[in-house]
Amino acid sequence: MDYDITEDHWQRRALELQQRLHAEIPLAHSMKIEVSSYSARALTLRAPLAANINHKHTAFGGSLYSLAVLTGWGLISLLLADSRQAGEIVIQNASIQYQRAIEDDFEATCVLPGDDSVAQFLGTLSRRDRARLLLEVTIGAPEQPAVVFSGNYVVHVPKNG
Amino acid sequence: MDYDITEDHWQRRALELQQRLHAEIPLAHSMKIEVSSYSARALTLRAPLAANINHKHTAFGGSLYSLAVLTGWGLISLLLADSRQAGEIVIQNASIQYQRAIEDDFEATCVLPGDDSVAQFLGTLSRRDRARLLLEVTIGAPEQPAVVFSGNYVVHVPKNG
Repeated sequence: MDYDITEDHWQRRALELQQRLHAEIPLAHSMKIEVSSYSARALTLRAPLAANINHKHTAFGGSLYSLAVLTGWGLISLLLADSRQAGEIVIQNASIQYQRAIEDDFEATCVLPGDDSVAQFLGTLSRRDRARLLLEVTIGAPEQPAVVFSGNYVVHVPKNG
Repeated sequence: MDYDITEDHWQRRALELQQRLHAEIPLAHSMKIEVSSYSARALTLRAPLAANINHKHTAFGGSLYSLAVLTGWGLISLLLADSRQAGEIVIQNASIQYQRAIEDDFEATCVLPGDDSVAQFLGTLSRRDRARLLLEVTIGAPEQPAVVFSGNYVVHVPKNG
């Protein structure tokens, strides 16, 4: 990362991501997703309970999954943008564990794996135009998450023309 | 199942389920989910691409998951109603494989496991007030599904009072 990246940079990126989610994915708009925070290494998305409630007045399992899958997707898309690397991101497979019901607005957080893993991912992507990244996303308090999501994302560099 | 169950019965149940999904789960309403078909053993839910599209103009992975998880949930809720058995259904964990992108409206189908498994599930539920059922849901042509979902549902009988 460049030394001259400022707080403004992350806030601008976060706002761009939020606008993109609402403009391009109608369900993200219906879910009223907001970017809660973004730094070089972590992204947190937030969603209100009211738009994502179920018949038991807790967060709908499909909303929890959707917020988690978009958090991983968003973090990779921000990483690619900051690495000046083009790439299309596809979720290949995922698993989710619901450990506790959620009765309030909720946040999903994804943290990039260590620098070595990220460097390897970006290196493979630029050499082979295709690379895979396994990301974990948690919802609720990090030490005792209510939901744990694990997703395999595949990124490929689109061919020109 | 009773011998006097008619085609009308399934259609009425299907309509009730669709109304319940839209009334109680705002995201199911945003997704414009419809019940496509229901019989004693299988439930198919449908969703239009437009309400569930992503930035690549294919079906959003979170919508595919949400339709799948609701198809399994709906089939159990219809099974419980037809068995005159009260129960609250919770998704405990799930996995999903995306095998192909979907570029059109889509349907998710869940088929109950064999009669022995269903009888065992209902027997455990009435003896212990709690039972688990693993269901598979597919989206796309059954012989070559675009999406395969597998979910562990836990049903428990609510205590009175």
